[in-house]
Amino acid sequence: MSETLNKVMDLAKRRGIFWPSYEIYGGVAGLYDIGPIGVKIKNKILKLWRKYFIEDNDDFVVEVETPIIGPSKVFEASGHVESFTDPVVECTKCRRVYRADHLIEDALKRSVEGLKPEELTKMIKENNLKCPSCGGDLGEVRLFNLLFATTIGPFTGNIGYLRPETAQGMFTSFKRVYESVRQKLPLGIAQIGRVARNEISPRQGLIRMREFSIMEIEFFIDPEDTENVPLSRFYDLKVKVLTKDEKVKDGRPKEYGIDEMVREKIVETPWMAYWMAVASKFVRALGINEFYFEEKLPHERAHYARQVFDQIAVINDMKVEISGHAYRGNYDLSRHMKFSGQDLSVFKKFEIPQAVKKKTVVIDNNKLKDKEKRKKLMDLIQNKQPEEIEEMLTKRVSIDGILLSDVISVIEREEKVTGKHFIPEVVEPSFGVERTLFLTILNAYKEKEGRTVLSLPRELGPYDVAVFPLLERENLINKAREIRDLLSKKYDILYDDSGSIGRRYARADEIGVPYAITIDPQTLVDNTVTIRDRDTWNQVRVKVNEIENSLQKLFSGEDISKIGIEVK
Amino acid sequence: MSETLNKVMDLAKRRGIFWPSYEIYGGVAGLYDIGPIGVKIKNKILKLWRKYFIEDNDDFVVEVETPIIGPSKVFEASGHVESFTDPVVECTKCRRVYRADHLIEDALKRSVEGLKPEELTKMIKENNLKCPSCGGDLGEVRLFNLLFATTIGPFTGNIGYLRPETAQGMFTSFKRVYESVRQKLPLGIAQIGRVARNEISPRQGLIRMREFSIMEIEFFIDPEDTENVPLSRFYDLKVKVLTKDEKVKDGRPKEYGIDEMVREKIVETPWMAYWMAVASKFVRALGINEFYFEEKLPHERAHYARQVFDQIAVINDMKVEISGHAYRGNYDLSRHMKFSGQDLSVFKKFEIPQAVKKKTVVIDNNKLKDKEKRKKLMDLIQNKQPEEIEEMLTKRVSIDGILLSDVISVIEREEKVTGKHFIPEVVEPSFGVERTLFLTILNAYKEKEGRTVLSLPRELGPYDVAVFPLLERENLINKAREIRDLLSKKYDILYDDSGSIGRRYARADEIGVPYAITIDPQTLVDNTVTIRDRDTWNQVRVKVNEIENSLQKLFSGEDISKIGIEVK
Repeated sequence: MSETLNKVMDLAKRRGIFWPSYEIYGGVAGLYDIGPIGVKIKNKILKLWRKYFIEDNDDFVVEVETPIIGPSKVFEASGHVESFTDPVVECTKCRRVYRADHLIEDALKRSVEGLKPEELTKMIKENNLKCPSCGGDLGEVRLFNLLFATTIGPFTGNIGYLRPETAQGMFTSFKRVYESVRQKLPLGIAQIGRVARNEISPRQGLIRMREFSIMEIEFFIDPEDTENVPLSRFYDLKVKVLTKDEKVKDGRPKEYGIDEMVREKIVETPWMAYWMAVASKFVRALGINEFYFEEKLPHERAHYARQVFDQIAVINDMKVEISGHAYRGNYDLSRHMKFSGQDLSVFKKFEIPQAVKKKTVVIDNNKLKDKEKRKKLMDLIQNKQPEEIEEMLTKRVSIDGILLSDVISVIEREEKVTGKHFIPEVVEPSFGVERTLFLTILNAYKEKEGRTVLSLPRELGPYDVAVFPLLERENLINKAREIRDLLSKKYDILYDDSGSIGRRYARADEIGVPYAITIDPQTLVDNTVTIRDRDTWNQVRVKVNEIENSLQKLFSGEDISKIGIEVK
Repeated sequence: MSETLNKVMDLAKRRGIFWPSYEIYGGVAGLYDIGPIGVKIKNKILKLWRKYFIEDNDDFVVEVETPIIGPSKVFEASGHVESFTDPVVECTKCRRVYRADHLIEDALKRSVEGLKPEELTKMIKENNLKCPSCGGDLGEVRLFNLLFATTIGPFTGNIGYLRPETAQGMFTSFKRVYESVRQKLPLGIAQIGRVARNEISPRQGLIRMREFSIMEIEFFIDPEDTENVPLSRFYDLKVKVLTKDEKVKDGRPKEYGIDEMVREKIVETPWMAYWMAVASKFVRALGINEFYFEEKLPHERAHYARQVFDQIAVINDMKVEISGHAYRGNYDLSRHMKFSGQDLSVFKKFEIPQAVKKKTVVIDNNKLKDKEKRKKLMDLIQNKQPEEIEEMLTKRVSIDGILLSDVISVIEREEKVTGKHFIPEVVEPSFGVERTLFLTILNAYKEKEGRTVLSLPRELGPYDVAVFPLLERENLINKAREIRDLLSKKYDILYDDSGSIGRRYARADEIGVPYAITIDPQTLVDNTVTIRDRDTWNQVRVKVNEIENSLQKLFSGEDISKIGIEVK
């Protein structure tokens, strides 16, 4: 697999898909540029994600864009200032810094997830682990916060952070968005945007980056409303799930229907199953058919999460997380309520107003005319619930010789309550954009007769169609340009008229252009062109005025052999 | 105008277009959220920009995406660490910090652009200017760097900055992109991405923000190739330009044809005129028809720029920069060559190899057999150009008694040179995304009979079409949903079935939905619906099976009165 990885990295550099940023300065680990071909594929992935996650759900999902920089208070409330940390250990000799957990795991081949810094330090000492680089002694393990810090404005005290997830933008603006959609739940607030995580040791490629884009939804729900989840949209869908119970038993993923996951209580809210179903369909549309959902154990979960499933893509032998599905409960909104002092609850109107019995304290002013005594009494009962006062009456409490029960009574009345306030809970499906791009390309990477073919799904090709004149001759070039101009109204065209035709096919194949149209001398005779399929290399001959129709069929999934006369 | 500004800000908050970020924490100056309706309009503006700047120029413009965070070296090379500053002054009493130039300009009503900190301090002292907030004494004016600083990775010494423009990403990746497009010039590298500027005093609204998005192109050219600029694409376009010569005379903008700007040497390279023409067409497509280009005077230009024109939009009485056009020469690539030690020049092949006369130094070894003398001679002539040695020969220089001309001769030979290396120059058209969104909305803001109408260009409406059942009746709702589903394949539909129809029209008008289709009892009788125009409020009745055709005509610019029977 690492061989394929290297080949993909080479291809990506050579053909302008992606490469390490700031290469002329030796690069910065964890930062990558997306090149011209990469941006084209990436933009199509974004379009696909928007279709599956936003447009297909536009009755309850909207999209926003919020800043990357936030004031420290926001990330204190979110818990990131306290909890968004990794354990690090420094070499006392060469001063290199390592991720302590990875260093130990690499050396001892066992998982140390969830262990405390002291425990990790102990393991290093007991196993006599040294600096992998210089062999020096390692120091104490400490926690390193992964937030990038900065200062906002000219006052040095105003600390800000770069967001490590887009989510806090949706929580802090929840009330505003909720009002703009006329106060309806469920409400999904989607965002595609950049985030930054100051990783200690970013991994190769686009898997773990220091700056990347996320496409995610914070989906606000009324936890009591479990009846109106449109699970029937996925009645025929089955997904593989490795539950936490199976996981601790070293079990394997099992297949479940979407409604079955709800019935069997695999998910803590039906909306988790809903978005896992959407994610399944989206990942299949990327061409990745092998994946499963793995439930995280309590100590593996982020500090805000009540339940988490990672969607694990299986590409060749490699298993990589492609999306995360977190049930955040009302953790975030509650914390922001506490830290901001603002009310972020919503009001739910009951369908039928409910009759509620309510106790009220009544004071008989006629029996209590003395101003001073009255004040003393008020001080005594102030801030007390009717139930407490009732107890005081039972216990025959008196003040200044006046028996409370002589001047106060507690009565019970029935009131109509039209609704109630509650804090919405949140389900969050989340994808990394560059990681999705990378896995889509890795999955599409094929070799055929010693040549590279990027078998991307047709909808994700950087160009839809290549147009080539067979030879560098004026009459062929003119005809080819004419066809390019005609098609470019509807399709994204790669036009190329230099070099051998074999070389041009190969160049189109390796960046994943699904079809190539070639204009040859015969075109000038009978007005036909060839259309070539990237994956099978089959070619058919069609009339120029049928090209559009043929392409439409091909993009609907028709086999190329069915749309024209095969060229031998 | 400020009244309209306030009304737009109110509308934007109320309807989910944009609002100050982190409102629940009191907000952070210069940071804004873009809400659901705002993102829809913004995404359409991006699409339009990509069409005008990238797709229409796809023979020489590609798009990339590079990180926001960069290592300090990149911004030392770019000159931002040294020069990206604003003058600030602190109150010695209340410790508030002000932009010194703005403070003086507000107080004295005269421009101080380009003055040094010492000069500004002097002006403050001489005019006895005090803290506008507490009346305290102001300190010395100093320069404040607007780069947001951070630390990359776990080593505290690794300073990084958030980019203040996307440009440096294109310069540092230039070589890689140039190679991926097979080494052709001109080459435009476009990018849409976030940038951050730590402004001292961000202005109201989306005009001057601390974090925003830029859409810009770094357009790399061969400065000697001025013949192949496709200015003829804009043969009928005229633009208003206020040149620096007119500006110092307090003159007004004059109208020029695009080729005329080149002929009259208004622009220092024809490509400046080219991209100013593209920007003109783009800004008109935003609905903004009144604008001119203002040339910056030398002291107003950024440190990297050889010539700059700001495109100034005139909306009501307000003049605001909507784009910047900078001729950066080879400043950036040269600086990065120097700071990185990498060769960023490109090789230009001459069409016909040029014969070049070249002088060579020839040493007659036979006449110089003494090893020691020979070494002395070599030391003498080492690192000298043939021309210098020729002069030495003329001057009859000798060494150790040997006359140079006895042992050395300089001969001239003709060599074929196939090309030459040069550093490309750069033209940069640059737009702020949020500012463009803001100005487009401000420009579209209208009032009609006391109601708000956002007269956005049809292509920029957050939704293309609204679909309303006239009444909340099941048969009308079902029919309306049917029509919504039919149209949503091609159009972005706003569906709404609650509230009075007048209220729903008003809600659609104020966010700029160009057309509304209403399903009423008559629809069930004769299968017709009404289509209503946002700007004129005219309504016509068309058959259901003609809706798509009618919409197509309307979006091509047909007047609504021509597509159906008018409803009185």
